Amino acid sequence: MAELVGNLLVAQSGGPTSVINASVAGVIQEAGKNGMIEEIYGGLNGILGILNEDLIDLNEEKAKTIENLKFTPGPALGTCRYKIDFKKKPEQAARDMDRLFEVFQAHNIRYFFYAGGNDSQDTSNQIHQEAVKRNYEMRIIGVPKTIDNDLPHTDHCPGYGSAAKYVATTVMEVALDVGGMATDDGACCIIEVMGRTAGWLAASAVLARRNENDAPHIILLPEIAFNEEVFLNKVREVVGQLKYCVVVVGEGLKNAQGEEIGADKSRLDAFGHPVLSGAADRLAELVQAKLNTKTRTIKLGYAQRAAAHIASLRDVEESVMCGEAAVRAAVDGRSGFMVKITRTSEDPYQSGTDLQDLNDIANAVHLIPRDWISEDGLLPNEKFVQYARPLIEGEPKLQYEGGLPKYAQLDRIAVDKVLQPRA
Amino acid sequence: MAELVGNLLVAQSGGPTSVINASVAGVIQEAGKNGMIEEIYGGLNGILGILNEDLIDLNEEKAKTIENLKFTPGPALGTCRYKIDFKKKPEQAARDMDRLFEVFQAHNIRYFFYAGGNDSQDTSNQIHQEAVKRNYEMRIIGVPKTIDNDLPHTDHCPGYGSAAKYVATTVMEVALDVGGMATDDGACCIIEVMGRTAGWLAASAVLARRNENDAPHIILLPEIAFNEEVFLNKVREVVGQLKYCVVVVGEGLKNAQGEEIGADKSRLDAFGHPVLSGAADRLAELVQAKLNTKTRTIKLGYAQRAAAHIASLRDVEESVMCGEAAVRAAVDGRSGFMVKITRTSEDPYQSGTDLQDLNDIANAVHLIPRDWISEDGLLPNEKFVQYARPLIEGEPKLQYEGGLPKYAQLDRIAVDKVLQPRA
Repeated sequence: MAELVGNLLVAQSGGPTSVINASVAGVIQEAGKNGMIEEIYGGLNGILGILNEDLIDLNEEKAKTIENLKFTPGPALGTCRYKIDFKKKPEQAARDMDRLFEVFQAHNIRYFFYAGGNDSQDTSNQIHQEAVKRNYEMRIIGVPKTIDNDLPHTDHCPGYGSAAKYVATTVMEVALDVGGMATDDGACCIIEVMGRTAGWLAASAVLARRNENDAPHIILLPEIAFNEEVFLNKVREVVGQLKYCVVVVGEGLKNAQGEEIGADKSRLDAFGHPVLSGAADRLAELVQAKLNTKTRTIKLGYAQRAAAHIASLRDVEESVMCGEAAVRAAVDGRSGFMVKITRTSEDPYQSGTDLQDLNDIANAVHLIPRDWISEDGLLPNEKFVQYARPLIEGEPKLQYEGGLPKYAQLDRIAVDKVLQPRA
Repeated sequence: MAELVGNLLVAQSGGPTSVINASVAGVIQEAGKNGMIEEIYGGLNGILGILNEDLIDLNEEKAKTIENLKFTPGPALGTCRYKIDFKKKPEQAARDMDRLFEVFQAHNIRYFFYAGGNDSQDTSNQIHQEAVKRNYEMRIIGVPKTIDNDLPHTDHCPGYGSAAKYVATTVMEVALDVGGMATDDGACCIIEVMGRTAGWLAASAVLARRNENDAPHIILLPEIAFNEEVFLNKVREVVGQLKYCVVVVGEGLKNAQGEEIGADKSRLDAFGHPVLSGAADRLAELVQAKLNTKTRTIKLGYAQRAAAHIASLRDVEESVMCGEAAVRAAVDGRSGFMVKITRTSEDPYQSGTDLQDLNDIANAVHLIPRDWISEDGLLPNEKFVQYARPLIEGEPKLQYEGGLPKYAQLDRIAVDKVLQPRA
């Protein structure tokens, strides 16, 4: 494979994770060691910023800032949800593609790394195909990232372990609170967890269970159609036995008809719009109405993607590893692949990286296998625990200032624009 | 003051905090050093358990368990919301009081420490008055605790600093997430924080602000009547400038008529009951309807009272100090007081303890002074920051096991019951 000397561009896309910057740090640090790569640029707000030629010079950042990026949540480069959509908007997409390659050529971008989930891998793939078609020599590698853990072919996704550690810790702590307050009146607490159609993150709460009676007592996964009767019977049984019940629900929980239970259109707000509440509030209404048990809800929301203060050190390290592997693969001449994590040993847990063709990634969703879930569908089983436990291990040593984590902030030194503004 | 030799009983009450056990650990460790105190008992589930003679022997617990209690959330002894109410239920209250003193006498309880908020201090006061009336020699000291920080006469309340650190950290992290995703479409995120009628905890989010444009951009406090127009104008302005806006709202936010905005009865669920959502969801509906800005909500709920993994070390230490001070005061012959925290130096911050007559505590609520809040009512000002900043400082070194905090679990060796079951 011919050596390719040129500049590097790294960008982030979609919903962030608390370790999405760790992968960028891995890219920057590995690229800095490599003679093929000259300038190291960051694209602001993903494809959207690149179309606007909004690039920053990452070589201008302090080395300690780059190191601290590994422990800093939120997308330090910014992300977008912009899609280049040849099916729905062919003309716009063609214009966007032309513009992207104008930007690449203007700045001699020969290495492009895009950290994201399904949609972003799809974008990387399109850019790769275009580069081949245009005969523009360029190496494009996707870096995986999603707390939903729903990308196929990789053992797990960077970002998942940290979100799982946060969710399991929170559920364990909330259970000590609710359990400690439980008296004969009974109490129920329902915690809503992200993950869209995949239950991986909701399932991770099971790691908080160390003994038979520990919370969470029920985990409702989007993979299993919601059965109201089975659910209410279990809540009644648990409250009867322990005086309290902690339920975790994946936001994408569906009923037997495949409708999300949190997106109930029958409840309207004062403006006549569907009420903005989710699966947990819906279930709480059910428990209060049918069982008359006092019920409180928690919706952790974006905190799940951002809680770097309780990140998994293993997740941080693997995210860095994915960024480094992307650069090495590209320098070795590979393009059109996503880095994936492979589990090379179960006990002790060990992992490595490999490459997967981007054609295999886009639009496929990886869900929890049915035989990783108990027969009654209300808890993940030991197979899931074996899979997930190693992913939450280890605690990063954060810097604190004035009682709060001290996160990295990029100086964001702009690269001079050389093109006309985007039409 | 005559020396009083006898047994000690410590119990917890009301909503827990992540450091309520630290005060119990302080009581136990200080009592263990004192020759006046023979047995050290814990009452399970507060007054309710004591009425049932549900006592455990805390001297049977391992010393390392007691030490680890300082870092363990949830009430290790259990709490209750049971009130001895002479006004509303005089006969029941009289029976309860007789029973309580039967239990005290049967177990030679001469020292009683009750960790709790307003209601619990009221209960402590009643028991103190009764002991005097019955001529039963006993020393009763209340130990403060509440994340709401609304007890009067104390500089602040144990439990507040840790909840504040958790809230400020979470808001800072969520802001990095939301801000990093912000594009021209604009985005709003509304985070609901506990505290009932007091805004102390919501206000603590302001500690996440280090620069002018940092989140949170708006904090709506229950102390300030909600003004829809002022609020919407500010959201529009911030989104216009920064492309995103992070709002923190105290759960008890009220409109000009004094009605809680989260308790809107006009929205009914499928069962015809008011929808179980809160202030954040209500505000989100408003922002989406009036400004057409995509808005997401977070409801941290009980996690705020339980997040010991990000506790304030200062809060832990002061909570222990309050427990120790309670024991010393009682051994010195004092009864009918609550321990309070005094700020003895501003810079460097130093604190000590003193005593306040329990008659001064019950049913009084301490709110944020108006001149600690900006003129437009949308953010706490520098006076608040100076007050709150020292309270969140320091990070405890937690033990972890399998990626999750390893919290203390009491063996709960029961004290033999000697009375007939409660009628």
